[in-house]
Amino acid sequence: MATEYSDLEKAINTLVTNFHAASKDNQPTLKADEFKSLLSSQLPTFIKSEQVGEVMKQMGVKDGEGISFKNFWGLIQNLATTQHGLLSHEKLSKCSCLLL
Amino acid sequence: MATEYSDLEKAINTLVTNFHAASKDNQPTLKADEFKSLLSSQLPTFIKSEQVGEVMKQMGVKDGEGISFKNFWGLIQNLATTQHGLLSHEKLSKCSCLLL
Repeated sequence: MATEYSDLEKAINTLVTNFHAASKDNQPTLKADEFKSLLSSQLPTFIKSEQVGEVMKQMGVKDGEGISFKNFWGLIQNLATTQHGLLSHEKLSKCSCLLL
Repeated sequence: MATEYSDLEKAINTLVTNFHAASKDNQPTLKADEFKSLLSSQLPTFIKSEQVGEVMKQMGVKDGEGISFKNFWGLIQNLATTQHGLLSHEKLSKCSCLLL
């Protein structure tokens, strides 16, 4: 019988597998081009293609270096924290969320 | 026209909204009982109910304190990193992923 996963478990799985799937040759880090493809296909709402260079700089990725899962996770954390803040202010006006 | 979100964007949204939805009175932090309910309903595969106390200790939550989004995010990060490592070893035997 197949295991049933919750929405939250599926969400974690989606984040991990998307990073893995973006590496065409199964490397531990993504090349800049692979990372750009990942962002443009998966995060078009949050990050515009002309912002990718700036985003990589903010993530602490140096020129010519690959993007590790740790780098990627920092980005997801920023997006989640921003969205958490937006949700708090828009939908829960009484909520003064403790952000990172 | 409704905006179409990618799997990755939906995953981030799921993480954020699950945390918010767990607070019955829209507070910025979750009470211990609310956090336990969240884990048992959403993370039954990763964390067993008898481990919740230990998990909260590892997250740095002190007795009587609420669980902030930052605490919660640290837990998600641990789970994702563990899963990232498992995926790397099980499915991509050549991959020596750089973990956190």
